[in-house]
Amino acid sequence: LEKSSESGAACLLESMSPAEISRAIESLPGDLRDPLWAQVPRLKKGEVLLELKGDLRRSLIKQTDEQELIACLSVMQMDEIADLDDDLPVSVVNAMVTAMDVHRRERYEQVKLYPDDVAGGLMDVDATAVRGDVTLNAVLRYLRRLRQREGSLPEHLESLMVIDRHNRFMGILPLSLLVSYDLSTTVSEVMSPDVVGIKPMTPNVEVARIFEDHDLMSAPVMDDEGYLVGRITVDDVINVMRDQADREILGRAGLDQHEDMFAPVINSSVRRALWLGINLLTAFLAAWVIGLFEGSIEKMVALAVLMPVVASMGGVAGSQTLTLVTRGMALDQISRRNVWKLAAHELTIGSLNGLFWAGVVAAIAYYWFNDPMLGMVFGAAMLIVIFTGALVGTFIPLILKRMGIDPALAGGVVLTTATDAIGFFAFLGLATVMLL
Amino acid sequence: LEKSSESGAACLLESMSPAEISRAIESLPGDLRDPLWAQVPRLKKGEVLLELKGDLRRSLIKQTDEQELIACLSVMQMDEIADLDDDLPVSVVNAMVTAMDVHRRERYEQVKLYPDDVAGGLMDVDATAVRGDVTLNAVLRYLRRLRQREGSLPEHLESLMVIDRHNRFMGILPLSLLVSYDLSTTVSEVMSPDVVGIKPMTPNVEVARIFEDHDLMSAPVMDDEGYLVGRITVDDVINVMRDQADREILGRAGLDQHEDMFAPVINSSVRRALWLGINLLTAFLAAWVIGLFEGSIEKMVALAVLMPVVASMGGVAGSQTLTLVTRGMALDQISRRNVWKLAAHELTIGSLNGLFWAGVVAAIAYYWFNDPMLGMVFGAAMLIVIFTGALVGTFIPLILKRMGIDPALAGGVVLTTATDAIGFFAFLGLATVMLL
Repeated sequence: LEKSSESGAACLLESMSPAEISRAIESLPGDLRDPLWAQVPRLKKGEVLLELKGDLRRSLIKQTDEQELIACLSVMQMDEIADLDDDLPVSVVNAMVTAMDVHRRERYEQVKLYPDDVAGGLMDVDATAVRGDVTLNAVLRYLRRLRQREGSLPEHLESLMVIDRHNRFMGILPLSLLVSYDLSTTVSEVMSPDVVGIKPMTPNVEVARIFEDHDLMSAPVMDDEGYLVGRITVDDVINVMRDQADREILGRAGLDQHEDMFAPVINSSVRRALWLGINLLTAFLAAWVIGLFEGSIEKMVALAVLMPVVASMGGVAGSQTLTLVTRGMALDQISRRNVWKLAAHELTIGSLNGLFWAGVVAAIAYYWFNDPMLGMVFGAAMLIVIFTGALVGTFIPLILKRMGIDPALAGGVVLTTATDAIGFFAFLGLATVMLL
Repeated sequence: LEKSSESGAACLLESMSPAEISRAIESLPGDLRDPLWAQVPRLKKGEVLLELKGDLRRSLIKQTDEQELIACLSVMQMDEIADLDDDLPVSVVNAMVTAMDVHRRERYEQVKLYPDDVAGGLMDVDATAVRGDVTLNAVLRYLRRLRQREGSLPEHLESLMVIDRHNRFMGILPLSLLVSYDLSTTVSEVMSPDVVGIKPMTPNVEVARIFEDHDLMSAPVMDDEGYLVGRITVDDVINVMRDQADREILGRAGLDQHEDMFAPVINSSVRRALWLGINLLTAFLAAWVIGLFEGSIEKMVALAVLMPVVASMGGVAGSQTLTLVTRGMALDQISRRNVWKLAAHELTIGSLNGLFWAGVVAAIAYYWFNDPMLGMVFGAAMLIVIFTGALVGTFIPLILKRMGIDPALAGGVVLTTATDAIGFFAFLGLATVMLL
């Protein structure tokens, strides 16, 4: 792409989906991004912005003419605009709202009522709904008129919402039922009334789980009184799942979910420096623990050689438990009822592995330094640190969650701090008492 | 659930989806799983098995009567059976195949041609297809007859595949077009001919990306000659995405993607011991590097206190780069063209952060040990290790991938080995040359 001529690039962009274009822009170094952006077809620009990572999105918005932006926005769906408008200049948002007709403005304001990370911010308010007491034939006529008036039916329309005359939700009518029943039947006779209802304030990640559990393609959003307020389609859910995975995987390394590969060096450096700083604090805590035993190390330098092995094994054993527990919590599989059984399970595994590796490392240390007592102390410290790794790995995520901190993001740092400090203390402390 | 009475549980299971039931079984400790499994309605058992993690699935299959298993399988889709049958007893598979009618057996054998991790193993071979030269009215009549004959239309039918009379793929007909055009129009006039085609051997993760990029709800699978062989729906893709995220997140801690929270303790211990063993090797490599400088540590014990700080900061800086590069590779955003720019970008960030934290730690070490030269050596080692962390973090995933190893799984271990060894060597080596 980078090398193709101007006209070639324009032609290629025409055939690419917004998601593909945004991925292509992200993979270009900074100086090549603006020329490519200028060539993106106007109809796609809005959706490309939506797919781009935060910083990059803001920088491209800054370089785009206001009139151009308003034109891009006019072809977007309400829920998409609502996800984007925090990054738009106020003047553009105002001009856009002014240009909307009453109907569109109403729907925009409805979506703006909800934060981006709940069902209300995810839903499309343009849900196509039909009354339960009409015939299938009337529905077909209605859909034909709708298409003629609007030019096309809403995207991803595979089912219609069925409402009663008070706009209360009754069920859904998959198009596959509409096309396979006799046209004189009424909607309420063939619709599916048992539908998983989603509330506007249901968090995004829970929406994704509901879709996954029930293999849904779309779902109605209704308020507490059962009034239909919108509709969520599976393509929104896929974005939620991707975001969630990005957040977890990048967050574990202290990276922002929106980290851009070619962000300006200064921005990236500052953001990463924060995480390095937190890590430095925990590393100095471990160093301070070692410092307590300076005298012992001076007398027996083998301690300095072996101590990182103890800390590292504790960290690895702990992170296995931590990952498993954090994952279980994300899937809602851990409750007060099974948490003690889980802890017992993890601690048994920790004890078994602790005993096994204690034996192995004791033998290695014995042969290396020719000192059976050093081997025993090393082994004992290994048992302690693997066991406490399992203990800490089980309870850190539970405690963090109760404190309102996402264990997937902060769990690793807290765990390493704990296992390092405990590992060094156990090994050097035991050695001081037993060997010196 | 655990506490509800037998009849209550049965009633609850009736209303739960297979995915929910499987999550509930997984969250129960071992001894409570069998009684719950016995109560799962037979119609759902097959799909519950499909959702369960590998080991648990096999253990429940063992406890289920063969006749019962065959009954469960008879209501499942071909692609589902194909995912399950490696875990089934041979006698059950044979009985199942014998009981199939010719048509069903043909489709089963077609799905079995492909491995589970490509489009061919994911697709549904029961794609509902219509000819391009018939009218929409004829399609409606066909669908009505199909529903009457089979009792219902295939699951997740939101579009029909359009083929010519040689069974060659022509396009797709979304039901939303079928219901909104005049019934005398022919299929080929309203269908969408521009469809993203998927080949049977396209890997699952690429299928997921295609669905994501184009916001698809379903896609045709066709062979090289353009013949339609099946259809993939978005619910299968969601499972692929979930599996991929599980694999990456659990794999980073050396856990199997199918790790079960309450697996028998011995099984879990053995599996985790493997990872601990690999880690022990790398930890001893670092210990060996320290061992090279025993003499220096004996003379200056502050080195032992500070050395874990150097190694740890190198590991963190490196893992930030590693995570970003691995993620970019997974999204196909890194190619030969931009890799050098990316490396330059990461190394610049590494240099800036290296310089900054070198200054900070030099000052801390100076005040702590009252030794300006120690501070300088500590700072210099910090710069070296953060810079090499960025260097190693960029190239490890590229090298691993070329070797055919998944960088998301092995990258972390290789990185830590490198940054530990380099960090200890740089710090202790510099100290030996400069201070002693």
